Amino acid sequence: MNELWQKIDTHIEENLDYWMAQLARLVGQPSVSAQHLGIDECAALVAAMLQEQGFATEIMPSDGNPVVYGEGNGRNPQTLLFYLHYDVQPPEPLDLWDSDPWTLTERDGKVYGRGISDDKGHIICRLAALAAVREAMGGELPCHVKFVIEGEEEVGSPSMPAFVEQHKEKLAANACIWEFGGVDYDGRPEQALGMRGICYVELSVQTANQDAHSGLGGSIFPNAAWRLVWALNTLKDTDERILIPGFYDNVQPPSEWDLALLDALPDESNKLKETFGLTGYLRGLTGGLEWKKTAVFDPTCTICGLTAGYQGPGTKTVLPAQASAKADFRLVPDQSPEEIVEKLRAHLDAQGFSDVEINFLGGGRPAKVDPDDPFVQLTNETAVSVYGVEPSVYPIIGGSGPNYPFIHVLGLPLVAAGIGYPGTQAHAPNENMRLDQFILGTKHTARIIERFGNK
Amino acid sequence: MNELWQKIDTHIEENLDYWMAQLARLVGQPSVSAQHLGIDECAALVAAMLQEQGFATEIMPSDGNPVVYGEGNGRNPQTLLFYLHYDVQPPEPLDLWDSDPWTLTERDGKVYGRGISDDKGHIICRLAALAAVREAMGGELPCHVKFVIEGEEEVGSPSMPAFVEQHKEKLAANACIWEFGGVDYDGRPEQALGMRGICYVELSVQTANQDAHSGLGGSIFPNAAWRLVWALNTLKDTDERILIPGFYDNVQPPSEWDLALLDALPDESNKLKETFGLTGYLRGLTGGLEWKKTAVFDPTCTICGLTAGYQGPGTKTVLPAQASAKADFRLVPDQSPEEIVEKLRAHLDAQGFSDVEINFLGGGRPAKVDPDDPFVQLTNETAVSVYGVEPSVYPIIGGSGPNYPFIHVLGLPLVAAGIGYPGTQAHAPNENMRLDQFILGTKHTARIIERFGNK
Repeated sequence: MNELWQKIDTHIEENLDYWMAQLARLVGQPSVSAQHLGIDECAALVAAMLQEQGFATEIMPSDGNPVVYGEGNGRNPQTLLFYLHYDVQPPEPLDLWDSDPWTLTERDGKVYGRGISDDKGHIICRLAALAAVREAMGGELPCHVKFVIEGEEEVGSPSMPAFVEQHKEKLAANACIWEFGGVDYDGRPEQALGMRGICYVELSVQTANQDAHSGLGGSIFPNAAWRLVWALNTLKDTDERILIPGFYDNVQPPSEWDLALLDALPDESNKLKETFGLTGYLRGLTGGLEWKKTAVFDPTCTICGLTAGYQGPGTKTVLPAQASAKADFRLVPDQSPEEIVEKLRAHLDAQGFSDVEINFLGGGRPAKVDPDDPFVQLTNETAVSVYGVEPSVYPIIGGSGPNYPFIHVLGLPLVAAGIGYPGTQAHAPNENMRLDQFILGTKHTARIIERFGNK
Repeated sequence: MNELWQKIDTHIEENLDYWMAQLARLVGQPSVSAQHLGIDECAALVAAMLQEQGFATEIMPSDGNPVVYGEGNGRNPQTLLFYLHYDVQPPEPLDLWDSDPWTLTERDGKVYGRGISDDKGHIICRLAALAAVREAMGGELPCHVKFVIEGEEEVGSPSMPAFVEQHKEKLAANACIWEFGGVDYDGRPEQALGMRGICYVELSVQTANQDAHSGLGGSIFPNAAWRLVWALNTLKDTDERILIPGFYDNVQPPSEWDLALLDALPDESNKLKETFGLTGYLRGLTGGLEWKKTAVFDPTCTICGLTAGYQGPGTKTVLPAQASAKADFRLVPDQSPEEIVEKLRAHLDAQGFSDVEINFLGGGRPAKVDPDDPFVQLTNETAVSVYGVEPSVYPIIGGSGPNYPFIHVLGLPLVAAGIGYPGTQAHAPNENMRLDQFILGTKHTARIIERFGNK
């Protein structure tokens, strides 16, 4: 290994406690976009932490939550952009956490807390990598860097497309490191070249101005919970086929190259099944290429939540006047959220459910990067140097994010690199980060910066 | 009016403040059987209040919550039994109450609070009527009286059948005044001669050991919320036909006499529609005999509550590992709750939903009284004397209660008399009682006691 990388690695390893203290600061500031909790406070904290690392920052308004923008100059003219987010998922259900979600807690080589992996750990990872590279290079960065750290990723980044469009010049760059990255069950690094899109809606029904006694209304009153159940039932059958007319019209099947990449990936079906205690996968899938393909190249319709009537202990003989469901559709190229909302409305109307209201809560289009881009190759090569194995390259992953404007408006190649591993429990109780993976992901990030800047 | 009734009426009117103070005591003691809240405390309070009125009391154990038993002797040998309950519905949703549910609050000639009508107001009504009759008769009751005041009516009275069977001798009586009664929208008294049965279940599904990120599992993981929606959808179609095989097998159609009684009843369809802000009734019903018949002689399947995944504000992209629904079936003669649970299980299994668990939370059989019974006639005649109009006689009502063991084990005729009116909001926020109806219902109760005892 060259001397520069040696210095970088040493700096990262020796400063672990410092960066975990920084991460504890960040985790200690709740920032739940879904609940409008602590957003401005967290944006201010992130800006302050960037400034402490020598970056010029601005808290920029968007159509929604503020965006923390940061920049710093380096030796060479090329610019690397870091996309990250400071908002986190709601911590509920609270009773399933083993320690307070807003207090960084270390146990068995891991640190726990809401957002510790998604995405606050990655913010700290980028800052730690930049500090190490700068230190190793005598106080100078090898290239210009920019940060876009948004506050609405966990609610579907509704403001990001317009924000990027509006600040196209300011955000101009040559490449982008995305908000996530990490390793699989075997410690093999993962490269994600695209993401499914998302369309998140709330469906709600109101059938009366108040709940009724079920003995009074049971035979004759419309019941909001029944209306909701019947409406939802028309969206997807038990074979997982989405029944909204035209839903699959714009779906592009995976290319030969996509399938070849998928085929080369490790088969994690057994490990995933065990982790989640599943008795089996949908449609009788048992792993292999068909399982891999379904997992990421199929669009979805997921019920994320159901609410109606009495939900406490025991019984209440009530006929609910209101009922609602939260649902997300994961979209694949070339579907768009706008199209799905329109088709969903038409479908519900056609099925006799005009009484079911649709509230569009956020969405974004799917997008993919060219696997042959030189920046992708650089990222894969540095991954090998850190992790000792070739990365698994995913042509697209199941999750979503606002990569579309970065790829298609700013024209950037996007890569993944970071601190994740399959047990992070992102979006679930006991979210955590492994300290060893933090060190590896930070080294990888640092080598990407160094190689990109000094090439 | 005879002199005795005059004295009784005057006593009731002059002691209104005293009885409202007693009702405030009772409302001030929460007693939510569904939540095991304040049950023992409320049983003790009710027993104390009966003792203060000169009745011997016992707090008797049952298979569930304690039963307050009371008795008092009178001049003549016949015995009148009062069935009542001290438990109440949960007060939720709390934010829809205009005043604290546990504090009796007077506004515009009404008093508000949870249980103020159902059924604590009726407990006070019976005590006030007995005190007035005793006072008017020089300190003596005209007949023996017994009280059975249970604490599980709002959760389906699971222990009452066994309790009545076990204490058959002790509870022996000649007639029974049931826990409710009152007037319709026009102030006409209502007589209920039967009740539908009930079968209350919770259906629940678990598909994984933890919630998952919807981007990860959406295409390949089973989703508890979807399983629940699909399972529920097989129970009833949008035409309100219950699809469980054999569900209607034991349904007895209404007799000619039943239909004649229904036909003579006022048509409250428009008023009910207005009160609940309905756009229309199920199956296109618009009132008349068909509407009346459907409302009470059709068995039901009501979803009372739905719970799954994230239910907070905004979005959470989660795939729920658990989902559950509360549902009640209202039963008509000769259906039974045991039969329904069995058929429901068989149906879910046959439809591929063996993963959906059924938790039976309570139930009771439907039962009806003979409209020609002399005690029914006495009750109707005294109603005319108080309200000035013939009562509406319902062959059966939509609600449920443990009348089966009282009718079929103790062999008693059961009548309704009391303080209710259509705006009580029983089981809903802002439950209330009209003070003028309290006075009328108490006078009616007192005249039944007097006439029954002195006949």
